[in-house]
Amino acid sequence: MAEAASQELLLAAAFVSDAQYNRNIPFKTSPEAVRLYYLYNHWFMRTATYFFIFLNLSLAVFEEPAVYPLPFLATSVVEVLCLLVFFGRLMHFAKITRRNVFWKDTKNICIMVAILLSLTDLAIYGALRIYNIKSIRWSRIVRPIFLVNFAESRQIRRAFRSIRNTLPEITYVFLLFMFSLLMFSLMALKLFGERNLQTAEGLPYFRDYLETVFDLYVLVTTANSPDVMMPAFDFSSWYALFFIAFVIVNTYIFMSLFLAVVYNNYKKHLKNEIRTLAYMKRRKMIEAFNLLKEEEGTQFVVREAQWKQLVKLVAPDISNSHRELLLRISDDEQKGFIDKKSFVQLADLLNIQVITLKIRSHPLGRWMPRVYKSAVSQFLRSVVRHRGFVWTYDVIILINAIFIALDEESPYISYAEWVFLALYIIEILLKVYTYEPRAFFGKNQFWNWFDTLIIFAALTATILNTTLKSTTKYNSQQILDIVFILRVLRLIRIVDSIQRFRVIMNTLINIVPTMLTFGGLTLVVYCIFAIIGMELFHGKIQFFPANSNAPYALECGNPALKDSLFARGKYCKNNFNNFASSFIVLMELTVVNQWHVFANGFANVTAQPAKLYFIAFHIVMVIIIVNIFVSFILEAFFVEYSLEKSEVETAIEQKIQELGMGVQEEALQDEQLLDNMEDADNDLEGEGGTKTQPAKGLVFKIASKRYRTVDALLQRMFEAEIPLEDEGPSFEEILNLSPTAAVPGDLTSERAV
Amino acid sequence: MAEAASQELLLAAAFVSDAQYNRNIPFKTSPEAVRLYYLYNHWFMRTATYFFIFLNLSLAVFEEPAVYPLPFLATSVVEVLCLLVFFGRLMHFAKITRRNVFWKDTKNICIMVAILLSLTDLAIYGALRIYNIKSIRWSRIVRPIFLVNFAESRQIRRAFRSIRNTLPEITYVFLLFMFSLLMFSLMALKLFGERNLQTAEGLPYFRDYLETVFDLYVLVTTANSPDVMMPAFDFSSWYALFFIAFVIVNTYIFMSLFLAVVYNNYKKHLKNEIRTLAYMKRRKMIEAFNLLKEEEGTQFVVREAQWKQLVKLVAPDISNSHRELLLRISDDEQKGFIDKKSFVQLADLLNIQVITLKIRSHPLGRWMPRVYKSAVSQFLRSVVRHRGFVWTYDVIILINAIFIALDEESPYISYAEWVFLALYIIEILLKVYTYEPRAFFGKNQFWNWFDTLIIFAALTATILNTTLKSTTKYNSQQILDIVFILRVLRLIRIVDSIQRFRVIMNTLINIVPTMLTFGGLTLVVYCIFAIIGMELFHGKIQFFPANSNAPYALECGNPALKDSLFARGKYCKNNFNNFASSFIVLMELTVVNQWHVFANGFANVTAQPAKLYFIAFHIVMVIIIVNIFVSFILEAFFVEYSLEKSEVETAIEQKIQELGMGVQEEALQDEQLLDNMEDADNDLEGEGGTKTQPAKGLVFKIASKRYRTVDALLQRMFEAEIPLEDEGPSFEEILNLSPTAAVPGDLTSERAV
Repeated sequence: MAEAASQELLLAAAFVSDAQYNRNIPFKTSPEAVRLYYLYNHWFMRTATYFFIFLNLSLAVFEEPAVYPLPFLATSVVEVLCLLVFFGRLMHFAKITRRNVFWKDTKNICIMVAILLSLTDLAIYGALRIYNIKSIRWSRIVRPIFLVNFAESRQIRRAFRSIRNTLPEITYVFLLFMFSLLMFSLMALKLFGERNLQTAEGLPYFRDYLETVFDLYVLVTTANSPDVMMPAFDFSSWYALFFIAFVIVNTYIFMSLFLAVVYNNYKKHLKNEIRTLAYMKRRKMIEAFNLLKEEEGTQFVVREAQWKQLVKLVAPDISNSHRELLLRISDDEQKGFIDKKSFVQLADLLNIQVITLKIRSHPLGRWMPRVYKSAVSQFLRSVVRHRGFVWTYDVIILINAIFIALDEESPYISYAEWVFLALYIIEILLKVYTYEPRAFFGKNQFWNWFDTLIIFAALTATILNTTLKSTTKYNSQQILDIVFILRVLRLIRIVDSIQRFRVIMNTLINIVPTMLTFGGLTLVVYCIFAIIGMELFHGKIQFFPANSNAPYALECGNPALKDSLFARGKYCKNNFNNFASSFIVLMELTVVNQWHVFANGFANVTAQPAKLYFIAFHIVMVIIIVNIFVSFILEAFFVEYSLEKSEVETAIEQKIQELGMGVQEEALQDEQLLDNMEDADNDLEGEGGTKTQPAKGLVFKIASKRYRTVDALLQRMFEAEIPLEDEGPSFEEILNLSPTAAVPGDLTSERAV
Repeated sequence: MAEAASQELLLAAAFVSDAQYNRNIPFKTSPEAVRLYYLYNHWFMRTATYFFIFLNLSLAVFEEPAVYPLPFLATSVVEVLCLLVFFGRLMHFAKITRRNVFWKDTKNICIMVAILLSLTDLAIYGALRIYNIKSIRWSRIVRPIFLVNFAESRQIRRAFRSIRNTLPEITYVFLLFMFSLLMFSLMALKLFGERNLQTAEGLPYFRDYLETVFDLYVLVTTANSPDVMMPAFDFSSWYALFFIAFVIVNTYIFMSLFLAVVYNNYKKHLKNEIRTLAYMKRRKMIEAFNLLKEEEGTQFVVREAQWKQLVKLVAPDISNSHRELLLRISDDEQKGFIDKKSFVQLADLLNIQVITLKIRSHPLGRWMPRVYKSAVSQFLRSVVRHRGFVWTYDVIILINAIFIALDEESPYISYAEWVFLALYIIEILLKVYTYEPRAFFGKNQFWNWFDTLIIFAALTATILNTTLKSTTKYNSQQILDIVFILRVLRLIRIVDSIQRFRVIMNTLINIVPTMLTFGGLTLVVYCIFAIIGMELFHGKIQFFPANSNAPYALECGNPALKDSLFARGKYCKNNFNNFASSFIVLMELTVVNQWHVFANGFANVTAQPAKLYFIAFHIVMVIIIVNIFVSFILEAFFVEYSLEKSEVETAIEQKIQELGMGVQEEALQDEQLLDNMEDADNDLEGEGGTKTQPAKGLVFKIASKRYRTVDALLQRMFEAEIPLEDEGPSFEEILNLSPTAAVPGDLTSERAV
């Protein structure tokens, strides 16, 4: 009986945890499956999966054409190992879901097909290799599938789905844009083609239709402006009007139109997905509730003891007092049980980061109270707490900046570096002396961590460098570079001193995790294009050091590049000869400028249709993904800039006010702490304020603008449209849904925005 | 008595007209002032003012340094004339407003100061000229003030106000961005400065701090990517990471942040302004109502006769039937009077473009009914109406496109041009024969007008060209160019055949008038920068034709440009030697690419600080104005893409359905017309459907997505936030406001978005 109850608790905790992290895995509810499900979600298993995914992707660095060549046997053994891990992970997943669910999911089919393809290709390639027949490792292109399709990469999959849904609308705008481009090209051909003009490189000017289309497509991206206009402009000033009209129509209007279409559709589809997520979350919470519910009068409720055990299981790392706070919020009137509505909120409550500020005395105050509480010590601590202390260090940083900019040769300046290092270390020590060390290095004290890490890294690197210099007379370039970078990074701290800058910086830091989704998206696109690029252009362009005597060293080893802009710009190192180089070329293509020089260069050494590769990359990366990135940043900033708090956050804050005050009244004798608390954001000045308090007080604070998960930020974005406390019928509606059924049609279907 | 009544009607009409066009001129209500006010708003007076503003601006083309030089006397006489006109316009304005209002308005003060400054400068310059002392015409920079400050340029002023309000927030982001730039520059200096690297041009690489900052600022705009990276990348592949980090932080994140801040603030401020406008409009309508109201039972109303006279005065060009329709909407229950609420709506009603489709027989059908109604004619007309007719012509256009792309030399192909022209003319004639000519050339039949104009212009130009060729053996380049352009423009028509493209095109056409605001804004910024640029860089760079023997012809006449990218790119014609050239250079700087080549080129021929001019232009034009343009396009597209209709439009449509059906039932025997009407958007296929109807039927249709004024579109944008039918207290609130008082504080003050 007790075991059955603990089974139910475990199952309920799995539901709550899924709701909290927005996982949507339809697992079986048998005890064994639930245990396997816990194992499946264990951080170690997930980290290991990611590790093998990235290991698999990074194989491209070691395989032919390699940055660091490894024998084929080594890479193929690692690949087989990775594939085995993926297969194992998939089998694990199969164990916890019902068979029909497993086979209906395209993700799983994709992974299996990808594993099979990889193995087949590996076998064929290996066999051919034995007979010394060179073939293509075409299956490498399927590797990003593992990154996209493993259940953990929800955000990347969602982004891909958004793109797929946006495609039809983009296609129409793109066709219209292409029509405009073709029309303008025809006009350019007629107007300039028969004038026998020449470009600055002496090439024929608008003589061939396809060349004209390409040149004008490049002009849309502005990469060849104003060069493409100059010959016509030199011929007659009036021809400038043609190019002005072209740029206004195609660059300004059509490109904005692309952004508008992408933004509008992305937002719409994302909103639908998030709405679905919100409903799924609620459904899971209700299932958890139904498992634990007991009858109390006319309604079903969850008892306090059960609830506490549940929270302990779901979030083992939160403190007792934090759990108590959550209980007081859920069980508002202290009735000893939690009703359905409050219970459903739990997933959101757990997602809000509540900082527990422990007001405890400084350890030094306990170990040697006489010294710590002496007049000198008191004075020292009041100095450190004074505003002037911060200002002094701001001035020191500025002076440091000037010293960095000055020439390093003078010995006085290189000694000054030691002085600055010492000053910074003293600052950190003083702060730790004044404030409580555990508060100083709290989870959310980003800037303190940043400072300390930078300073100690700089100290280590500087000492290492000096030792090397004095013992071996050898100045390690790498270490010196790192010292330089750390020295300059130290200066960032000054931003933290200015309130307005801190707000912008915090906003930037907050959207970093969500930007990682785009990192993943970009990685997938880059991987695919890099692998194709290496097959197409490998070895065609070589880089030779400046003093090389190799034939055609100035033409990147390829006579076809003679007199080309590619060779003249000394772009030889931008080639597809290995995975790392390919990534850098693709990055440069993403930045857009001079991409036509790359396209022409690689087309010269292979064939003209090679330009299509570059055009395809531009369309996929710049027109679609960068625009989605911009849309996302815009939307995220609008949310961050509007300072309103969510309903749940407001509820928690109210509760903290109600309860927290009570706690504080015992612990505090002056109101200083509270006053400081309210304006300190990620600042420390408040926390150390209770100088002589022996009591272990507790203060809660909401890290209001931090999101634990990307989904939380997304939900925040569309909060206004998604009712968080949808009561009555919708609850029943969700209850009536079977757990395995897809989300009801009306939730996923598009609604007018 | 009658005169007093007509006075009041005139005054009320002035109020209604102001409300309709969102004019906010606090004119005096004396009969004389009202008459002067009518004159002030007369289209001729407004057009004349604009004419003189542009004449004044275009003087820069004829003054030294001139595109077309005119004697100083001529330009100064024209300038004095312009200033006199401006002064006259200002005096006219002074006559119609109260004195205290007039002197409180900064617009008027600005204009007066600008006139005074211009006259002073003109006098000084003229006097010095007599003694042959060369001085600067510095007052030319104030000329755009007239464009901004005359009462008609509301939109441009609003845009400037938005920019001013956005500045503080942009400044903080900009400072943070500058900080990041300075930090990265310091790092670049330390990392690469002591490596003795060289750029592709053989210049020192990151050796000087200011140079480094400039180079990295250019990299933010992507204009020197990847060139700026190559030397470091060639030295060590790891250094690519520095540039990747730089581009991600500064180009992608900070530039998106600028767009986000500009967009967010622009939207917020615009919304406030539009809300104010909406309240002002309502206030004016209530003033008009109060002038005309009569007592009717317990409420005040406006009688039908009065209302009709008012509408006749306000909108003299709308048809009787249209007016009748408006009356039926306003006086819903046909009580013979209009109550306050309906009366206030009138301004919005007048702004909705209702198309009156007159169903009348073809004039040929009346003049020679026997021929027109013969079987052959009937058949012909049914052919033209058939879908296949449109498709046939689409095929013809495509064949035409191929012929245009082919070589012109073959005589067959040049004959083919005549065949195509003939085919197009036949098409237009057939359509006019089939459909009613006045319907075919209706106000909203954009594509018909476009087709006809293009075809007849092409016909004229082709005939002219052939005549010239056969008589003088001389092929005029200009005419030939125009023929080519017209020929290609003809192909645009194919877009109109595809429904999806037509929707996008109509959206684009609809936002054209609103984009003109940005045209005005751009004109002001360009004028100011062009005049400064001419003073700074005039004559420093010269353009010589390709075969010139002038000294330093290849270095643009300036030895300082030897080996520079500017000279190598053959950019000599991009100079500030006259107003037109300056505009083209500024356009190229707006497109951004290669702007650093310009900056370096002009800095080489003058002094290094000249780069500040180019940086300032980049910040003003690209970071601020282009971002506002993009924000505006985004917002406009979101509105256009969401297909909902406004409340007033829906009301009118309902009424049209109610009434229109009645009208049609008499006129129609088949339902064909109605059926066609509903899916025809700007199409003609429906209108000619009543083949044998002698009755003069009337059908109304809302040109739903057309906006007469920019303000109408803007109001549409923020409609959701501005209650259109705000009843009760807010009415009284507005009534209590004195007409001269500024808008109440709470309306203009910012509200949380």
